[in-house]
Amino acid sequence: MKLLKTLLPAAALVALPTLGLAQDDGPVAGVNPSTDMVFIMNSLLFLVGGFLVFWMAAGFAMLEAGLVRSKNVTMQLIKNISLFSMAAIFYYLIGYNLMYPLGTWMMDGIVSGVWGPGVLEAVGVTADAADDYGYAATSGDFFFQLMFCAATASIVSGTLAERIKLWPFLIFVIILTSIIYPLQASWKWGGGFLDEMGFLDFAGSTVVHSVGGWAALVGAIILGPRIGKYKDGKTVPIPGSNLALATLGTFILWMGWFGFNGGSQLAMGSVGDVADVGRIFANTNTAAAGGAIAALILTQVLYKKPDLTMVLNGALAGLVSITAEPLTPSLGMATLIGAVGGVIVVFAVPFLDKLKIDDVVGAIPVHLFAGIWGTIAVVLTNPDANLGVQLFSILVVGVFVVVSSAVVWFILKATMGIRVGEEEEINGLDMSELGMEAYPEFSKG
Amino acid sequence: MKLLKTLLPAAALVALPTLGLAQDDGPVAGVNPSTDMVFIMNSLLFLVGGFLVFWMAAGFAMLEAGLVRSKNVTMQLIKNISLFSMAAIFYYLIGYNLMYPLGTWMMDGIVSGVWGPGVLEAVGVTADAADDYGYAATSGDFFFQLMFCAATASIVSGTLAERIKLWPFLIFVIILTSIIYPLQASWKWGGGFLDEMGFLDFAGSTVVHSVGGWAALVGAIILGPRIGKYKDGKTVPIPGSNLALATLGTFILWMGWFGFNGGSQLAMGSVGDVADVGRIFANTNTAAAGGAIAALILTQVLYKKPDLTMVLNGALAGLVSITAEPLTPSLGMATLIGAVGGVIVVFAVPFLDKLKIDDVVGAIPVHLFAGIWGTIAVVLTNPDANLGVQLFSILVVGVFVVVSSAVVWFILKATMGIRVGEEEEINGLDMSELGMEAYPEFSKG
Amino acid sequence: MKLLKTLLPAAALVALPTLGLAQDDGPVAGVNPSTDMVFIMNSLLFLVGGFLVFWMAAGFAMLEAGLVRSKNVTMQLIKNISLFSMAAIFYYLIGYNLMYPLGTWMMDGIVSGVWGPGVLEAVGVTADAADDYGYAATSGDFFFQLMFCAATASIVSGTLAERIKLWPFLIFVIILTSIIYPLQASWKWGGGFLDEMGFLDFAGSTVVHSVGGWAALVGAIILGPRIGKYKDGKTVPIPGSNLALATLGTFILWMGWFGFNGGSQLAMGSVGDVADVGRIFANTNTAAAGGAIAALILTQVLYKKPDLTMVLNGALAGLVSITAEPLTPSLGMATLIGAVGGVIVVFAVPFLDKLKIDDVVGAIPVHLFAGIWGTIAVVLTNPDANLGVQLFSILVVGVFVVVSSAVVWFILKATMGIRVGEEEEINGLDMSELGMEAYPEFSKG
Repeated sequence: MKLLKTLLPAAALVALPTLGLAQDDGPVAGVNPSTDMVFIMNSLLFLVGGFLVFWMAAGFAMLEAGLVRSKNVTMQLIKNISLFSMAAIFYYLIGYNLMYPLGTWMMDGIVSGVWGPGVLEAVGVTADAADDYGYAATSGDFFFQLMFCAATASIVSGTLAERIKLWPFLIFVIILTSIIYPLQASWKWGGGFLDEMGFLDFAGSTVVHSVGGWAALVGAIILGPRIGKYKDGKTVPIPGSNLALATLGTFILWMGWFGFNGGSQLAMGSVGDVADVGRIFANTNTAAAGGAIAALILTQVLYKKPDLTMVLNGALAGLVSITAEPLTPSLGMATLIGAVGGVIVVFAVPFLDKLKIDDVVGAIPVHLFAGIWGTIAVVLTNPDANLGVQLFSILVVGVFVVVSSAVVWFILKATMGIRVGEEEEINGLDMSELGMEAYPEFSKG
Repeated sequence: MKLLKTLLPAAALVALPTLGLAQDDGPVAGVNPSTDMVFIMNSLLFLVGGFLVFWMAAGFAMLEAGLVRSKNVTMQLIKNISLFSMAAIFYYLIGYNLMYPLGTWMMDGIVSGVWGPGVLEAVGVTADAADDYGYAATSGDFFFQLMFCAATASIVSGTLAERIKLWPFLIFVIILTSIIYPLQASWKWGGGFLDEMGFLDFAGSTVVHSVGGWAALVGAIILGPRIGKYKDGKTVPIPGSNLALATLGTFILWMGWFGFNGGSQLAMGSVGDVADVGRIFANTNTAAAGGAIAALILTQVLYKKPDLTMVLNGALAGLVSITAEPLTPSLGMATLIGAVGGVIVVFAVPFLDKLKIDDVVGAIPVHLFAGIWGTIAVVLTNPDANLGVQLFSILVVGVFVVVSSAVVWFILKATMGIRVGEEEEINGLDMSELGMEAYPEFSKG
Repeated sequence: MKLLKTLLPAAALVALPTLGLAQDDGPVAGVNPSTDMVFIMNSLLFLVGGFLVFWMAAGFAMLEAGLVRSKNVTMQLIKNISLFSMAAIFYYLIGYNLMYPLGTWMMDGIVSGVWGPGVLEAVGVTADAADDYGYAATSGDFFFQLMFCAATASIVSGTLAERIKLWPFLIFVIILTSIIYPLQASWKWGGGFLDEMGFLDFAGSTVVHSVGGWAALVGAIILGPRIGKYKDGKTVPIPGSNLALATLGTFILWMGWFGFNGGSQLAMGSVGDVADVGRIFANTNTAAAGGAIAALILTQVLYKKPDLTMVLNGALAGLVSITAEPLTPSLGMATLIGAVGGVIVVFAVPFLDKLKIDDVVGAIPVHLFAGIWGTIAVVLTNPDANLGVQLFSILVVGVFVVVSSAVVWFILKATMGIRVGEEEEINGLDMSELGMEAYPEFSKG
């Protein structure tokens, strides 16, 4: 995403109408088919892309609800719907303004809001906007951006499942979505120093996925593993309670990713742009397939039994891997980039266990490790990419997120505590924290 | 939705081609990029909006299947897919024609149907349609409208779950979707007297949601509560069997609502229209978030334990609340309007229980109470709204739906009976009425 | 789908730019609003249609996971995600090139791929493409076509559930999606001899659904029924483990079908095309409703108890029935065509059981029988259809798929074996083949 271009022209938009420029009308009065349609198509891409990325919130919720034990399912569901809602409110109140500070200040002039910081243009803007400017609706851009911010928070919730308290987690989400995510995103997508250095991250292998992954990693270390996960130097498998839900969640995420990557073209009002969105859809799909098949074959070879959860995470890792550059690869190259993501997952999951870092759903391998790989893989197909800049950007973002997350987690731990009591954890968070079971009638084996 | 405008121009459409007007061709022969594209984009909005609102049928099915006990899940599923199918057929046969009588009569001239009343234009209409008219495909409008009618029926099925017989329920659905819904909808969206008075209900807080809610309320009173729900003056909680499904249903409804509210702009062929659709998407999302967070905080404060089902219904109430006016509020105002919806749900659920009105899924608080609130809240942000007219319209629609529903329910009760026998209810409707369990292998605790 | 037209103009696309034609610019330099917008809208239809048909992969997965016993759910899930992934890779490597051989050879000139056969145009193609050509993005077409191929494979997996080994099944999928499907599809959609004879199959009642159905039928016969399905001349019902999932899967498929049929209009850049897509959406929806209601009423009449799985399959059969011609029927006719599909299912399911052909999810009645009916029903509403040609085409495709599938199944049976051992089957494929349960905590009744 080259999001800066959504905002600097907004300045022009504010200024120009006062100059009383004559409209260059098309064949029908009041409609300039060229610029108007570009504006309309670009806005439409944001809206369709946006509802697809929204859908990923449901995907994370189902994936995580399927991979935790049934005694923690209600808690995982309430965390997911609440984190999305918190992100929606706080990204609007603080995050979006922090991410594009110059742009939003200027946009104040066309805001109709009567409450709080506003990000939407007035109702029924005239066609002048498109004629003089030709980009897209700010509301569409906001809607689309918000979904990326919320996805970052969703990543964290899976790793920390089954032991973190609800409210400290939600406070972390508020800080992540109002400050940590937007600040680092502005370095690239707000036209900041990483963007100026030439860092390339099309839809956010680093800006979104690694950020969620780093925050999850720091949280998992500070929080510690679940009771009983590591015993006598061995890792005890804790199977998820509902693999049908987990698979549904993966398909939802896969579908939403067409909006995530395709929408990040940020334009579809020209032949070249819409053809590029098509390339991105095809590459995104094939990378997911590559990741799934790599994990399928590798678990067959290594363990003699294919592992469904690895295949699901393999598909997701394929998606994360292609996210930094879904446009320039050929289909074959996209398949390979995704396949490497699937391989990473199969090896990274036991590796984290060796370090006794307990990642309940495998979000760190999928979003952090495959995110790093995807960011590096840009250099394979995009001649504008510079390996040094890519590595430097991964490092800068990583250090920032690790340090800032750690500070927040430690403050939360010191003040309100972040982990439920031992008894609560063993009994399950649903009954102890919420007094409500997700499947109250199915007796547990 | 200002749906009248979809139909009066249709009259022109029928008349004008016979005048042999010369086409004002654009730069390429046969294509007038201005009017054609407006027609195309408006039609596309109906189609995308329509499949999103279709998706809400799945959302209602999952929400309700998750909130009933496992012994009634199969029945709830068959009710939901059947009610949607009945609505599809009877809204086409009767309802749509009743809702826009003038328009559809005139449209007959361009209908290609060989069976029953037709609502679609001929295959491969020429560009004259758009040049002279410039609105949208009738088929797209029909498809979109149908989904609203079906949603109204879905609301009823949740409230009356676990005790109503299948066929009487489906007969009610037929009457609701062929007559009750379309008649009152014509008063506003067919250009009837409420519309002329200045009643504002953008996407149907009253026209859709309160109508479903009133019909559900009357049904619940006539049907009576489930056995064992109220005992010795106390309300006995009957937990839903699958909160993961219920959460999935809520996310599906949330997603579908972008089509529900956004599509109700009824146009996206101009810069102003597409920007407005963007505003509506953003406002709809934030209202849902506001409702969810309000219910989360309020149940934490009141009961010391956050309640997932209240959070889900809070999000839905936020969505219903913003539906009467999703365009004019600022993001902050939309958040507040949604939050009030969430608060209403938390207080209305125990209030209904006090009255011994047994609403299995909480549809009356969500769709009726929040629908009334949303209709009133239009006056907060839309200067064209008149509080008196809003209240009068709520009342008129309410009285009409209550009376007509009551008549239908009483006739059904007197003729075929509407409630299953006591033994059937206790054993569950799945085995007694259908001979089929939803989860036959999971032993019940 | 008249897919040939996507490819012959591609030849022109390769040739013309070298002629140095002057661009007939629209009012704004570099943008010809007429041709560019047609190209953009057509491409967009492929992309939206494509992600909707992708979503059907999730629908098949949920439907099948819901209709098998819980001991085989993990296996059914891993089969579904793996078959989609295999289809994605092998349709790209082999199938797509086989389906449109002439077109893709010529397209090589504009392919940017560095690995394997390429099907995408270069990044950022200029507007020349649209000015001289005006069709749609190849990447969009590829993305859309791929989803149809994958759907064909999904059909097979349901029938053969609960007893087929994973790897032989996936090898069959590879051959189906690289060779069998594309070869016969080229006869119609690649402009082959069936197309030249005047065979009409708009979105693939025969080309997709019957092909999957034939392959499933042959597989079911060669594989044999599940242990215990037919005992002492009687059919033993084996209920699915999760009807909520199965219903969700049906709703997902229904939603995806709007893309399947609507996208097969292959164009929405003109008034006539978008109005036709609207007709298709409306007809597709009503056919599904007709199939569901027919099955509901018929099972009520025949068995005194409505059968949810029949209603679900009735809706799907309605969808398959309208797929060969979703455009020309009126709404009433579409409802009837779908209703006949629903009737077919109710009678075909016990008929197959009489023949001891064990079709776990009912895919043969839904996709093969209703697919044949739908292909024949084209003659009822499309005056261009010829009954003899329709029947001949059904037969030719059937013979080809039956023979080629049988050869592949027999080779697989002779070499690696296709069926799990008796003990494995009784214990369930999840534990014996994968060592992983889908619902490990819910004790089985």
